[in-house]
Amino acid sequence: MKKWVYLFEEGYREIPAERRRDLLGGKGAGLAEMAGAGLPVPPGFTITTEACNAYFAAGRQFPEGLWEQVLEALHRVEEKVGRRFGDPQNPLLVSVRSGAKFSMPGMMDTVLNVGLTDETVKGLIAQTGDERFAYDAYRRLIQMFGRIVKGIPGERFEHILDRYKAKTKGKQDTDLTAEMLRDIVEEFKALYRKELEEEFPQDPLEQLRQAIRAVFDSWFGKRAVDYRNFYKIPHDLGTACNVQTMVFGNMGFDSATGVAFTRNPATGEKELYGEYLPNAQGEDVVAGIRTPLKITKKASQEWAREHGISEEERRLRYPSLEERMPETYQQFLEVAALLERHYRDVQDLEFTIERGRLWMLQTRTGKRTAKAAVKIAVDMVHEGLITKEEAVMRVEPEQINQLLLPRFDEKAKERAREKGDLLARGLNASPGAATGHAVFDADTAEAWGRDGRPVILVRPETTPDDVHGMIAARGILTQRGGATSHAAVVARGLGKPAVVGCEALQIDLERKQFSVNGRVIREGDFISIDGSTGEVFAGQIPTIDPNLAEERELAELLAWADEFRRLQVWANADYPRDARKAREFGAEGIGLARTEHMFFEADRLPYVRQMILNAPEAQRLMDQLRAAQQAAQARPDDPKAQKALREAERAVRTSKAVKAYRKALDRLLPVQRKDFEGLFEAMDGLPVIIRLIDPPMHEFLPRYEELLAEVVELRTRIEERRKIKGYRPRKGEKSIRQMEEELAEKEALLRAVNALREMNPMLGLRGIRLGILYPDIIRLQVRAILEAACNVKRRGITPKPEIMIPLSADVKELQIVREIVDEVAREVMAREGVEIEYKFGTMIEVPRAALLAAEIAQVAEFFSFGTNDLTQTVWAISRDDAEGKFLLRYLEEKIVPENPFQVLDRKGVGRLMRMAVEEGRRTRPDLEVGICGEHGGDPSSIEFCHEIGLNYVSASPYRVPVARLAAAQAALKERAARIETR
Amino acid sequence: MKKWVYLFEEGYREIPAERRRDLLGGKGAGLAEMAGAGLPVPPGFTITTEACNAYFAAGRQFPEGLWEQVLEALHRVEEKVGRRFGDPQNPLLVSVRSGAKFSMPGMMDTVLNVGLTDETVKGLIAQTGDERFAYDAYRRLIQMFGRIVKGIPGERFEHILDRYKAKTKGKQDTDLTAEMLRDIVEEFKALYRKELEEEFPQDPLEQLRQAIRAVFDSWFGKRAVDYRNFYKIPHDLGTACNVQTMVFGNMGFDSATGVAFTRNPATGEKELYGEYLPNAQGEDVVAGIRTPLKITKKASQEWAREHGISEEERRLRYPSLEERMPETYQQFLEVAALLERHYRDVQDLEFTIERGRLWMLQTRTGKRTAKAAVKIAVDMVHEGLITKEEAVMRVEPEQINQLLLPRFDEKAKERAREKGDLLARGLNASPGAATGHAVFDADTAEAWGRDGRPVILVRPETTPDDVHGMIAARGILTQRGGATSHAAVVARGLGKPAVVGCEALQIDLERKQFSVNGRVIREGDFISIDGSTGEVFAGQIPTIDPNLAEERELAELLAWADEFRRLQVWANADYPRDARKAREFGAEGIGLARTEHMFFEADRLPYVRQMILNAPEAQRLMDQLRAAQQAAQARPDDPKAQKALREAERAVRTSKAVKAYRKALDRLLPVQRKDFEGLFEAMDGLPVIIRLIDPPMHEFLPRYEELLAEVVELRTRIEERRKIKGYRPRKGEKSIRQMEEELAEKEALLRAVNALREMNPMLGLRGIRLGILYPDIIRLQVRAILEAACNVKRRGITPKPEIMIPLSADVKELQIVREIVDEVAREVMAREGVEIEYKFGTMIEVPRAALLAAEIAQVAEFFSFGTNDLTQTVWAISRDDAEGKFLLRYLEEKIVPENPFQVLDRKGVGRLMRMAVEEGRRTRPDLEVGICGEHGGDPSSIEFCHEIGLNYVSASPYRVPVARLAAAQAALKERAARIETR
Repeated sequence: MKKWVYLFEEGYREIPAERRRDLLGGKGAGLAEMAGAGLPVPPGFTITTEACNAYFAAGRQFPEGLWEQVLEALHRVEEKVGRRFGDPQNPLLVSVRSGAKFSMPGMMDTVLNVGLTDETVKGLIAQTGDERFAYDAYRRLIQMFGRIVKGIPGERFEHILDRYKAKTKGKQDTDLTAEMLRDIVEEFKALYRKELEEEFPQDPLEQLRQAIRAVFDSWFGKRAVDYRNFYKIPHDLGTACNVQTMVFGNMGFDSATGVAFTRNPATGEKELYGEYLPNAQGEDVVAGIRTPLKITKKASQEWAREHGISEEERRLRYPSLEERMPETYQQFLEVAALLERHYRDVQDLEFTIERGRLWMLQTRTGKRTAKAAVKIAVDMVHEGLITKEEAVMRVEPEQINQLLLPRFDEKAKERAREKGDLLARGLNASPGAATGHAVFDADTAEAWGRDGRPVILVRPETTPDDVHGMIAARGILTQRGGATSHAAVVARGLGKPAVVGCEALQIDLERKQFSVNGRVIREGDFISIDGSTGEVFAGQIPTIDPNLAEERELAELLAWADEFRRLQVWANADYPRDARKAREFGAEGIGLARTEHMFFEADRLPYVRQMILNAPEAQRLMDQLRAAQQAAQARPDDPKAQKALREAERAVRTSKAVKAYRKALDRLLPVQRKDFEGLFEAMDGLPVIIRLIDPPMHEFLPRYEELLAEVVELRTRIEERRKIKGYRPRKGEKSIRQMEEELAEKEALLRAVNALREMNPMLGLRGIRLGILYPDIIRLQVRAILEAACNVKRRGITPKPEIMIPLSADVKELQIVREIVDEVAREVMAREGVEIEYKFGTMIEVPRAALLAAEIAQVAEFFSFGTNDLTQTVWAISRDDAEGKFLLRYLEEKIVPENPFQVLDRKGVGRLMRMAVEEGRRTRPDLEVGICGEHGGDPSSIEFCHEIGLNYVSASPYRVPVARLAAAQAALKERAARIETR
Repeated sequence: MKKWVYLFEEGYREIPAERRRDLLGGKGAGLAEMAGAGLPVPPGFTITTEACNAYFAAGRQFPEGLWEQVLEALHRVEEKVGRRFGDPQNPLLVSVRSGAKFSMPGMMDTVLNVGLTDETVKGLIAQTGDERFAYDAYRRLIQMFGRIVKGIPGERFEHILDRYKAKTKGKQDTDLTAEMLRDIVEEFKALYRKELEEEFPQDPLEQLRQAIRAVFDSWFGKRAVDYRNFYKIPHDLGTACNVQTMVFGNMGFDSATGVAFTRNPATGEKELYGEYLPNAQGEDVVAGIRTPLKITKKASQEWAREHGISEEERRLRYPSLEERMPETYQQFLEVAALLERHYRDVQDLEFTIERGRLWMLQTRTGKRTAKAAVKIAVDMVHEGLITKEEAVMRVEPEQINQLLLPRFDEKAKERAREKGDLLARGLNASPGAATGHAVFDADTAEAWGRDGRPVILVRPETTPDDVHGMIAARGILTQRGGATSHAAVVARGLGKPAVVGCEALQIDLERKQFSVNGRVIREGDFISIDGSTGEVFAGQIPTIDPNLAEERELAELLAWADEFRRLQVWANADYPRDARKAREFGAEGIGLARTEHMFFEADRLPYVRQMILNAPEAQRLMDQLRAAQQAAQARPDDPKAQKALREAERAVRTSKAVKAYRKALDRLLPVQRKDFEGLFEAMDGLPVIIRLIDPPMHEFLPRYEELLAEVVELRTRIEERRKIKGYRPRKGEKSIRQMEEELAEKEALLRAVNALREMNPMLGLRGIRLGILYPDIIRLQVRAILEAACNVKRRGITPKPEIMIPLSADVKELQIVREIVDEVAREVMAREGVEIEYKFGTMIEVPRAALLAAEIAQVAEFFSFGTNDLTQTVWAISRDDAEGKFLLRYLEEKIVPENPFQVLDRKGVGRLMRMAVEEGRRTRPDLEVGICGEHGGDPSSIEFCHEIGLNYVSASPYRVPVARLAAAQAALKERAARIETR
């Protein structure tokens, strides 16, 4: 016969530690271990997760032997406690609680006080001498049983309770008298009868059986299923069911109940941290009706100071457990220390004191803030409790990110609170802090954002139509929606702070404003949101960038991580300030400096436009000249060829386009050179990968549609005004002649922009293709890079430039560009008299480049995976279009387990990467391979990069620490797996 | 010592047949073989291609031993002929001719009459007794030597010649007297001296040495290099050099020269076909100054009939060789038959008759028209000359295509000629015939083309900016450019007829017209072009579609091909008429029926638009309803859930969008069903793969930019008119109110279109993604397919529908859609009471689908490679943007050897295909795999599809025969390779 049921101490003795959570669930395993360690645990037993699965497999029937084993275990508990289940004199009461392998707080069901009936309630009165307590316990059982086991809507019980409360003076639960509670019990039983057409079961065993079934059933309740889907917990784990002797913290003032952490879960300080309530049940602590008291004296005193409460008053009205029950407190301290040592981690404890006696109800690993997680891990290493490897494995890389996100200056935030600027609190859906102008629609957000104004997008709720505005905004604030709402999911995806479900806001989209508690915020007014706390403020609160040096423990943890990791961590940085930040965060190189971002700066955009608008014509003439030169050289005595050459020379010499093109390039050279000097200085001695121009040219030009609208408008206006005889412009209006001049200019620009428009710019004329059509642009950039390197080298700095070509798909493209690069480099170095070592490499961001890696590595000295574009092409999904239009739906329908633009798609994109690494290295064993897509900062993706043997990942500066930790964890996991398979 | 030089008969004896062309070149091998067979060949020798390569390797120096071997061989020739080189009494004269492995007509150089000097010319006079002949030969030598060996511009010689000709009565070469020619020789020598500051070499051996060098040098002449680049002939083959005794067809009327084919190269008829000129040299035949005569009497008589020449006159003035020299003719007939038998193929012969004696100068495989190629191959099988396999391998698949292209009705064309409508002749750059309105710019071509009007785009020359117009046009006509011009290359790529370089046209773009010989064609006038002949006609000439049944030999050849091929050939066809054509051409199934083409038809486009514009809102409401239903079902006693369900139901019931959406779907069902019935009927018993809706929805809507312009124009007009006090619309103008109504309507449409616009539609919401968002559209299509199948089955037809899903990238997408498909199919079959077998499969057109083929094959029963999209994504190249903007440049720079959209890129796209086939079949061994991209009709791509084991290729109907032949050739090549490696 299969063993379905384990007494707590049996669980400890009979089940090996590594199987305990699987079989007994988290709560059951904790109880078993506490019982096994001889700690004071109310006796009880656990029904295994296997029993739960067998129950569902049999079509919601108890498997064979289960009930008998329950009865047997119950009997053993009766013996231990010295009470009998259903005994009218001295009844045993039990709780029936779910407990799965992974904590699913509030998602599954619990029934307390099982065993109370019209008969046994009398025994309870006899035992406790407290009629009020006994009837209160009984009405709680009927209420919970009715609601949870039988599905009677909870408000129907509440309604009755409210009626009685209304009769009392204080209108509170605690004001109900014993008589009232007895009447309530009767009314509850009547309600039960009416709802279900059956009596509330008076057989305690029947109560138990049904409660166990309800716990099992709750595993597939909607909330639980949704929760598991969201947190990706498998549905076949099943839940265990814990049946445990009830102990009562509400048996008078020598009783209490409480929760505690063995260390401070907010700061990580090594101090017992917790609260208790005298004469109360566990649910009262959670319900928050009474103010819980602090456990330690120190914490109690601090609390009183904060609330302006005198020491006398505190000792009288708010004494700590340490002061109130010094002996029990000492015992609890010892138990807590023992459990932390046993588990080698911070414990989250639940306890009850019943008439002076301490009972431990639960121990589990304590959840903690990012800050605490780091401090605790580091402290425990220093205490000799855990190893450095364990410390590194203990902290979630994503948590670190929180520590390093911009946050509000605490003092400024405090001042805002004092000024009454705290408007409301919503759900802290995506961490970080942001401040900006409130705007109420996505288009405005986008427009203002384009103008460089910081905005917070405020919406009742967001839909895919708002995504372009969310991208442009610094933060998102919504009135409706929860942690899995569109706004929350998208904001986390975008890495932007978001506060959602802030129901206090009254948003008026028509008038573009919201009001909250009578205060009105209009479009353009400054607001500030804290996505880590859910707070919403009026006005501007300055944000501060965290500093790694000040986060001492984090720096220490990361230093340990660096010892373990094999992957290097580089950073994506376009400007010297970003490079410096990245280096401060531990970056060992720049994996991607995008030169085109520099082109957008106001001081150079006009020249960039001049370059682009003249490039096609100028290049055409120069190509003709080159062809004519070749022809004339091949046929030196052919007069036609000589004549054609002279004509081509003249065409180039007299062309306005060539002149403007060359002038633009000349103007851009010194500014680009200066950009690169700054990067080399910041990264002195470390490699800097500079990517040559990548985006399609029209990105630098005015938008076609806007120009078109302007042209049509002007044209129509001219037409209309011409119809008016003797038309004269009014004040402020332009003359027709002026308008016509303007029109001609705009039409010319429109034509030029139109010539550069593309159906699918992602797949169009960009990257290396631009370089092949317009080699002078590449020459300009390479010259700027090499001249910058020469300049800084003369100043004693060691530049290590690596020149990277985007979007290559064939080795021949790279051969052509490499010749240009090497030629320009030789020229510059000869002229400057300085020798610079540089590398030449390519992005691998087109599937074909990955497929032909062996050939491409003949010319490229390094590869850098551009996984953003590679994901777009491998999936044939344009990120711009998909995220708003259908990717969300794909996530909902689980067609994709994660957004492939955030978490690397190992099966598709990853497979190509693996092939490219292997085949590229076969050609060139010392090939340097890295990744510079956004995935370079994602822990799961970093793990994969480690697996396939990349040299480095390159992440945005703020994610460098995350990447360092993730890389170390990948290495440690691999080591563990190796040891296991040995 | 390496042997560089072979006497002709030595070449036959000493070099194995399969090495002969490599070493001796085509001409040299032919001479060797003719000499070896004992045919009358003027004695001579060949300098090998190896010598040529050694010459270049040594920096244009004769390799060691070469000159000595030349002298030795020359000596042997002297002995044979009985004359001595440089002998003042009886001089030997030789020709020095290039001859590479592959024929490069006119691309390389020849020097004749080498060995003539001031001394030896006298010997020639003595030999021939013809002073005029001798000086003419001498002046030809100086002229050719000066021009070809020394690079003196040819016109300088012509200029002198012209001066003398002007003095004569007839103004012709032949009118020059012996004295004149002697003077010309002196003037030529003087010119030579003046140009080069040296004397014309009087040492015959020096002439020979320099002529050989010139032949070698011409291998890297510009024309030759360009030619090889165009035809993809390697540059390292080198040319051989043939030195051969001169024979003269111009030694009086018992001499002649001519060319002949052993069969008619135009029709393939088995009859000697050729022309000769009495008393003439080879170059005279080519120059076309005198009208050549026919060789056979029959041909001569026919020619006379055509030209209205009486039999008497013919016999007198235009006698055939058969009549003029019956014996020599007989000898020639025998030689020709012997050579054809020897080479087992049609031979193209050059011969000279010197004083009654026949000399064979050249034999080579005869070029022939497509029609002739097919007939000759088939006839030769029937004659027992070659095997069926050889016949199948003899015909280029692309040639077949010509036979099946639309062509002009010959009689109509003849009538047009008679009417004087033949305007001009240009270069036949891309075969096929087209008729349409002349238009002079690409935008008009596109606009008219969109309206369904046939147009011919006429341009001075084309550039990438014209490509959109070329796509829209039926044919292309240019004034300038050659076979490798932009117009020619692009037209061939597009498979459109083109006549280029038609210099007779005078195009006036300003006035949108062209004139030719005084006749003016204006925009909109009909013209007709024949891209196979280069003819340009005024007016409309009806085109006819060829019929395979009438092409008896072709049908026979294809039937043999069918015996050998392993690949099936299916067709891409959207309409029943195309399906019927495909079946007639031998298609064994429909590999791709695009349902969306059907959506564009005028009778349904309004409903399609209605469907699209209402789909987002309707689907949103229906999704809400579905969610509410699930929630209500899960919580039957939750009043909130019930209320939400009722609200969702009401929303769907009252929504205009839902109503319009459903109505549109209802309207589309019967028309789609009818479409499918037609396809099933046409393909009775054969598989029909129907692809569900694929393109982005906005393709069915008006263009955004046009709508935007209309809206802005209206808005501005309203604004302007409002400014006018007391404004009243003039006649024909709308009132402001009317304009406002129109504006509101257009604005609504603009918003809807805008919501569907995408940055990169190629990578956007299309294909299966549409199906997942709007499952009702899929349901509609599947219902139409299954109902159609049921209907035709009841009529005794066997429908074999296969339902194909486009753009899938993950197996989960397919699972979702497959459930819908199967559910609808079950429903329809149950309702109709008919059982239909259908398959479910997917396109593989996204790299990820290929990478995950093993998983995808779990759900898909067939794969069809969509290599158009796969090429776009593997290369990250949008075809729309690239072909105009940079792909041409990539072809020029040889970055891509061929346009990857025409010839499958085996390394990139092909590698993914190979992986997908292997891994897909590992999951599902009977997986049906085919290709439906354009590559399915390209012979090289078909060969690759055969190699990787596809089941079928699917090509456009007109290319089905091409594909049948290509598939057979692939199988035969594989067989040959297997035999070789054994």
